[in-house]
Amino acid sequence: MSPDSPASRAPTDALGAPMPTPVVNATIAAQMAHRSIRAYTSEPVGEDTVATLLEVACHGATSSFQQQVTIIRVLDPSVREQIHLASGQPYVGGERGELFVLVVDLHRNALIRERAGAPVEPLERTALFLQGVEDTMIAAQNLVVAAESLGLGTTYLGSILGDAPRVIAALGLPTRTFPLVGLLVGHRAQEPQYKPRLPREITCAVDAYPELEAHLDALADYDASVAQYYDLRDASSRVDAFTEQMARALGGGAASQAPVLEVLRSQLLCLR
Amino acid sequence: MSPDSPASRAPTDALGAPMPTPVVNATIAAQMAHRSIRAYTSEPVGEDTVATLLEVACHGATSSFQQQVTIIRVLDPSVREQIHLASGQPYVGGERGELFVLVVDLHRNALIRERAGAPVEPLERTALFLQGVEDTMIAAQNLVVAAESLGLGTTYLGSILGDAPRVIAALGLPTRTFPLVGLLVGHRAQEPQYKPRLPREITCAVDAYPELEAHLDALADYDASVAQYYDLRDASSRVDAFTEQMARALGGGAASQAPVLEVLRSQLLCLR
Repeated sequence: MSPDSPASRAPTDALGAPMPTPVVNATIAAQMAHRSIRAYTSEPVGEDTVATLLEVACHGATSSFQQQVTIIRVLDPSVREQIHLASGQPYVGGERGELFVLVVDLHRNALIRERAGAPVEPLERTALFLQGVEDTMIAAQNLVVAAESLGLGTTYLGSILGDAPRVIAALGLPTRTFPLVGLLVGHRAQEPQYKPRLPREITCAVDAYPELEAHLDALADYDASVAQYYDLRDASSRVDAFTEQMARALGGGAASQAPVLEVLRSQLLCLR
Repeated sequence: MSPDSPASRAPTDALGAPMPTPVVNATIAAQMAHRSIRAYTSEPVGEDTVATLLEVACHGATSSFQQQVTIIRVLDPSVREQIHLASGQPYVGGERGELFVLVVDLHRNALIRERAGAPVEPLERTALFLQGVEDTMIAAQNLVVAAESLGLGTTYLGSILGDAPRVIAALGLPTRTFPLVGLLVGHRAQEPQYKPRLPREITCAVDAYPELEAHLDALADYDASVAQYYDLRDASSRVDAFTEQMARALGGGAASQAPVLEVLRSQLLCLR
């Protein structure tokens, strides 16, 4: 199986049999058309749209109703410059695209518990932090899907963890909070090609974890399709298959090398 | 401000001024109508729909192209019973609703690196684990939005972390993987009321972390609206305001008390 665009794809299962016909509506069509957009026009995102996106972000599921997320919209150019420096990504600088920072927030419930005389110890557990991460990512992806359904482009900025302390200082984040991801949202100034994903027989399975060894042919096909993708995007750039990228570059970026566990603990998160 | 249904809501900002008019399309309307559904009819979710949902799940953004997620669909009743026991939630048992377990998967890239002779050390960092959690939650929320756009009901099962080792054993999960959340998807057999979320002036801010103390009136209004929600759902059940729930119940569930950090480390994740 060679993954390519949804339109031309004829999916097969692990034994080569045809898979069921996709069920598509406007929401799903937009989700299937997802590409990260890293260049935006100078047209601002309207205030009505920003308000809607924030509403949608906060309407998703939340673990045990704890609502452990806070979204900070960055408008001040000096604050934005700090986020830009933390991320190290040139497209975060300047003023194109709305910039949001999604913060895992256990501070709010800690305050509520302190006011009620309840212990804050539970908020120091990794379980509670992960619940906050889940709330935060549900909000983030809800925002992304809503923005893309309106024709806007988005990109996640995991790169802000390259210097989380700088982000914490720039936004005045208290203990028990953690700036997990940034998001840029704006009017698209690029239309990148669809970046193929691993085949379903590798990433999805029934009842038990899939054996990679049973799908090495599919992985080789996928490697070839990824190499093709890069080749088309920029003929002058190096072509790396997926497995080559994972073997060579994984863990090499600043965000991947950052002392995240240390920062979490200094924020009084994941202490046990 | 008293949050209620999107239709009847007239949002105001922190100073009471009217907020911008929501921008709505079919995708956003479905997102705004989100409720967790914990009761399903016996009608199965079609295979075409399941295939589509898995495709959509894997089409979201992925941190550094690492694609650190595996989705396991549970069909075997004996496997499902183990997930049911891990979760402790009665609605996970039986056969109503499709059950998926979303697994943070650093094992696949570890194998790829081992085959290429590259060190697997980066995969033991908390930064890489969090990137996998992000990939996993993007896939999960993409699946949820797609399912809800088709009129299906969904609920997240954070409860499976109440006994993660049981889930790991039931699904044969290798080291460097972690079963983060379950999802149930099915035809709705209940129409619960909208559960109001914290007001935007508390969960969203501009350029800096918001001060809860400045919004205590909004929090009191919100407490009143949450109490009303429970009252309407089941007049015989105890009414707890949001702040009371956070002061009393937060951290009390099995999933919140589970030794998650220990399990992560035994899976060779978050070692540093």
